[in-house]
Amino acid sequence: MENFTFDVATDIRFGKDRLSELPAVLDTFGKRVLLVYGGGSIKRNGLYDAIIALLKANDNEIYELNGVEPNPRVETVAKGAALCQEHEIEVILAVGGGSVIDCSKVIAGAAISQEDPWKMVLKRRYDGPALPLVTVLTLAATGSEMNRGAVISNLETKQKLGIHGENFLPKVSFLDPTNTFTVNQYQTAAGSADILSHLFEIYFNKTQGTDVQDGVAEGLMKAVIKNLPIALETPNDYDARANLMWASTLALNGLVGKGRSGAWSCHPMEHELSAFYDITHGIGLAILTPRWMEHVLNEQTVGKFARFAKEVWGIDEAVPELAARMAIQKTYDFFKACGIPMTLPEVGINDDRDFAEMASQAVAHSTIATDAFVPLQADDVVAIYQASLTETNFL
Amino acid sequence: MENFTFDVATDIRFGKDRLSELPAVLDTFGKRVLLVYGGGSIKRNGLYDAIIALLKANDNEIYELNGVEPNPRVETVAKGAALCQEHEIEVILAVGGGSVIDCSKVIAGAAISQEDPWKMVLKRRYDGPALPLVTVLTLAATGSEMNRGAVISNLETKQKLGIHGENFLPKVSFLDPTNTFTVNQYQTAAGSADILSHLFEIYFNKTQGTDVQDGVAEGLMKAVIKNLPIALETPNDYDARANLMWASTLALNGLVGKGRSGAWSCHPMEHELSAFYDITHGIGLAILTPRWMEHVLNEQTVGKFARFAKEVWGIDEAVPELAARMAIQKTYDFFKACGIPMTLPEVGINDDRDFAEMASQAVAHSTIATDAFVPLQADDVVAIYQASLTETNFL
Repeated sequence: MENFTFDVATDIRFGKDRLSELPAVLDTFGKRVLLVYGGGSIKRNGLYDAIIALLKANDNEIYELNGVEPNPRVETVAKGAALCQEHEIEVILAVGGGSVIDCSKVIAGAAISQEDPWKMVLKRRYDGPALPLVTVLTLAATGSEMNRGAVISNLETKQKLGIHGENFLPKVSFLDPTNTFTVNQYQTAAGSADILSHLFEIYFNKTQGTDVQDGVAEGLMKAVIKNLPIALETPNDYDARANLMWASTLALNGLVGKGRSGAWSCHPMEHELSAFYDITHGIGLAILTPRWMEHVLNEQTVGKFARFAKEVWGIDEAVPELAARMAIQKTYDFFKACGIPMTLPEVGINDDRDFAEMASQAVAHSTIATDAFVPLQADDVVAIYQASLTETNFL
Repeated sequence: MENFTFDVATDIRFGKDRLSELPAVLDTFGKRVLLVYGGGSIKRNGLYDAIIALLKANDNEIYELNGVEPNPRVETVAKGAALCQEHEIEVILAVGGGSVIDCSKVIAGAAISQEDPWKMVLKRRYDGPALPLVTVLTLAATGSEMNRGAVISNLETKQKLGIHGENFLPKVSFLDPTNTFTVNQYQTAAGSADILSHLFEIYFNKTQGTDVQDGVAEGLMKAVIKNLPIALETPNDYDARANLMWASTLALNGLVGKGRSGAWSCHPMEHELSAFYDITHGIGLAILTPRWMEHVLNEQTVGKFARFAKEVWGIDEAVPELAARMAIQKTYDFFKACGIPMTLPEVGINDDRDFAEMASQAVAHSTIATDAFVPLQADDVVAIYQASLTETNFL
């Protein structure tokens, strides 16, 4: 296990009927609020009206930034930062999924630093001050509600990059599973694929002696694998939604990742799919994951895949490589059974014309070629994209 | 899953060679430090000297409270609080295991509130202010380094009671696995029994829909079960010590326990063993645990025990009751193989003369009789104590 600092002070308010706590939470920072949200689903399900009513009764001054994109764009960040400066915003209230929260984090920094947001993102780290951020989560997926990361897209340069901000950590996050009851099957499955991918990215790692982290990761994976089908079948199942929501938060708040280093694999590859084709992040991850697993399965990695097979999928098979392949097939079949399109053509990527450029960007914008579980060069990335064009059998 | 607030802001500095960060950490609170420690093991292993050297070089004013007992006594709390008041202490530095940290928490509160410490403990909750607390952990066991709880003993009244303090949460905790290399086999095993007991107390619970918490608990249990024998065999195995240490912290920082209610079972029963006979807490827990498991195994609980058998012990047995009994036997055998004396006479409790009084206190000082996984009346507690007098076979 490697040294780490675990310092995740977000105050999590988990459960139903807790929104009445919101005004007091905001008051600890100020009355002038920038409300950030996405495409309007919170208007359809009543959450927007509930929040506005609470804040008006609390004499908040509310300014709004709406229309944050599923892959939030740097122009939207700039717009939000300008609003903060113009209206002397004291606290940002992000109501939505990871995109809205990510966008709000970078707004929170840019509003104070007054830097050009894309220049900030290109530095990949921001240690300066940020406005306080409070979130109301509406999608179990990215874990952004309890960490310091954000991912911002620039469609002009076809780039989708992560940035870490020392002061991007939300102060308070409201996690009400009922706010995800209206998330449709496709987005529910995509969100869970994102959760699982975070866990896979961290779990398949070369650092030794991380039984605590591995055990926690396996527990979270099993919770998602059990509860996603329930949530798809019964969207209002509170416990299923609660388990997916809490798993999403814990998957990426450092609990599983701290104590080991190394680079992620599928996320850098997927970021290029989204940057070039603007597809749903979790779907891209689900498509790439089993192909990546098969590509990196070798003598050195088979032990971890065999553990994954036994502990997560309950596969009782003594031959490690066979166990590993059965686990990869199970992963593929699980995503497919959850309604996820499992080939690139199903999401509108019909040929390999951009693969070489995407692969070279994936390698350029990450340390996948040196620090990944199995280091991947541009050729490897192209091969994984290629394998994702058609249905695959892993056995 | 039930509603919960997860707000555990302790800044964890995990790993070796990080003590040089201590002066800067203390400086955020002040120069006047009360150093609290136990029986002197930190003098034998060099940790005391290292800390004193660092603090002297940092111009700290150091006052000391040493000799904190394994079951810390209320008189020691009073002594510490008086020292804080007399020397206008600005920050408490607890160097030790759970006893030292627990004692320091209540000192931190009593120093400011100036209440009689035992009156504070009898209220079981303290919401008032407290001095800031920084810890350097030397034993993987109680989890006190990242939570708001403390347990204090009063030998005069034969009481050992828990208290929860809103401001008892350590500000920063240094978790260096190498500081546990010198912990002997007996205390290492006792500490791990305490970790496992925390997980069992929380895991065997009636709240439904807690797959995330259950999966995390199972992962932590497996990490302890794998790494304790390694640490016993090779006391300087860094990764084994690191996994035990991080597991101890996560077992009781809310991660596993939040989202469900209910009372603990073995801890209230063990607190009476310690209060009456001053035995090692973790050893008492190990002795009681399998007898308690057998006592509460019934038609309603067998499902959870069968899950425990499968997920934690890898028991492949289709008949739930048999699987459950095999898991209880495995738990007993594991503790025994780790060198833990598994009957009460082995720890000097040779007869049942105090059992009735201890049982009545266990019921009086907790909600075990109403809120436990299986509610236990005084008669049940006596039966569990009785069963602990002799070797037991659970199959």
